[in-house]
Amino acid sequence: MTKRERIERLDYLPGWERAIYQRPDIFSYSMDAVLLGKFAQLPKSGEGKIMDLCTGTGAVPLIMSQRTRTFIEAVEIQPVLVSLAEKSVHENNLADQIRVMEADILELDGLVRWESYDTVTCNPPYFPVTAEKGKNVNNHLSLARHEIACTLDDVIRVSSRLVKQKGRVAIVHRPERLPDIFGTMIKYRLEPKRIQYVHPKSDREANIVLVEAVREGKPGIKTMPPWIVYGEDNTYTGEFKEHYE
Amino acid sequence: MTKRERIERLDYLPGWERAIYQRPDIFSYSMDAVLLGKFAQLPKSGEGKIMDLCTGTGAVPLIMSQRTRTFIEAVEIQPVLVSLAEKSVHENNLADQIRVMEADILELDGLVRWESYDTVTCNPPYFPVTAEKGKNVNNHLSLARHEIACTLDDVIRVSSRLVKQKGRVAIVHRPERLPDIFGTMIKYRLEPKRIQYVHPKSDREANIVLVEAVREGKPGIKTMPPWIVYGEDNTYTGEFKEHYE
Repeated sequence: MTKRERIERLDYLPGWERAIYQRPDIFSYSMDAVLLGKFAQLPKSGEGKIMDLCTGTGAVPLIMSQRTRTFIEAVEIQPVLVSLAEKSVHENNLADQIRVMEADILELDGLVRWESYDTVTCNPPYFPVTAEKGKNVNNHLSLARHEIACTLDDVIRVSSRLVKQKGRVAIVHRPERLPDIFGTMIKYRLEPKRIQYVHPKSDREANIVLVEAVREGKPGIKTMPPWIVYGEDNTYTGEFKEHYE
Repeated sequence: MTKRERIERLDYLPGWERAIYQRPDIFSYSMDAVLLGKFAQLPKSGEGKIMDLCTGTGAVPLIMSQRTRTFIEAVEIQPVLVSLAEKSVHENNLADQIRVMEADILELDGLVRWESYDTVTCNPPYFPVTAEKGKNVNNHLSLARHEIACTLDDVIRVSSRLVKQKGRVAIVHRPERLPDIFGTMIKYRLEPKRIQYVHPKSDREANIVLVEAVREGKPGIKTMPPWIVYGEDNTYTGEFKEHYE
């Protein structure tokens, strides 16, 4: 890794309306975070409040701030990512709308009011910790990618405690985990209501899934038209650009 | 209803290779059955055995018989549909490959050998019985469409008892029920491994889902490229024709 890569970099999120500080050596926002910020159903603009868990460099709240004036809180466990997220909030003049907290989502007592959020979003670590992978836990990327600091069960349990009755929880994850995601949501009284798949191409398996659940909702899930990222010519499809940019 | 409609009719299944007797006044095979017959992963041709539950007029075994020489058993509770299925089996000269039994899937003891099938398929009744709908249970279509004679739990529990270790269970259902389908499969040790959505058009919600599970399988589900039925011009897309015909 060169010295240059260890330095902060100011990028733009898709659509060019929001700047975001990154540290490519540690963590960069992914397409998944952007899609989550577009997918989540938000309360009426300016009303209620939103929470984003495992916010990383804050991509999800930055994207959501383009869609709503509602106040957004965000939680991240890694101090270096919290600093970057805070710098981005100031860079975009959003200090009145977004508040980033450095915290472990398993220790939110006193920091939040439970059962008070209209929408909770989360782009959690995707990969279960295996005995082998668990050995090398001492780096930023592992914390963001592997279920070291929090598991899927943790994320969903905490999200369920944070939302109001009939509030919404939206997460992005790997489609391979879907049965587990549904089972865990239902265990914590979150009823899956809307599912969005993303396929890299029209003839390829889905590689991203977004799921929205409603606290104490009625059973019955909608499967939205799929988002296909790349066309035959390997550029974004028009339809995908519409959602992404 | 005219007299003519009460009479049996000999149709062809998509692809024109298999004839099927129908009674349009009682029950006609659906696209769902055909897709299930195409979707299910079958044992090596000629080896093992296959079971189709809730077979109706036998569309699923007839379709599968185009793909394999493996012996197929099929169960249906309604005598009039069993007769039609048997006539179709003879019409197609498949008496050596397909055996249709008149039976309630809840009373299969003595009729089948448990834990012996390589693949079990089922296109079950889709709709839960509500207090209101439950009143009018005394007709053929209701039995085929509503969970009167068997529930989703029954279908999945019986399928799980029928398959061997590592055997496959494939069902077709409404996407709205997916969390319930996954939860019930896992309850009966069937691990969901492959999911196929069907969307009527590329910009419409999915209206059919096919799920394949493996008895005692490892977690991890694949979400296949979606099947889109109709193109802009309201005719079958080329891709869909390929799977369907």
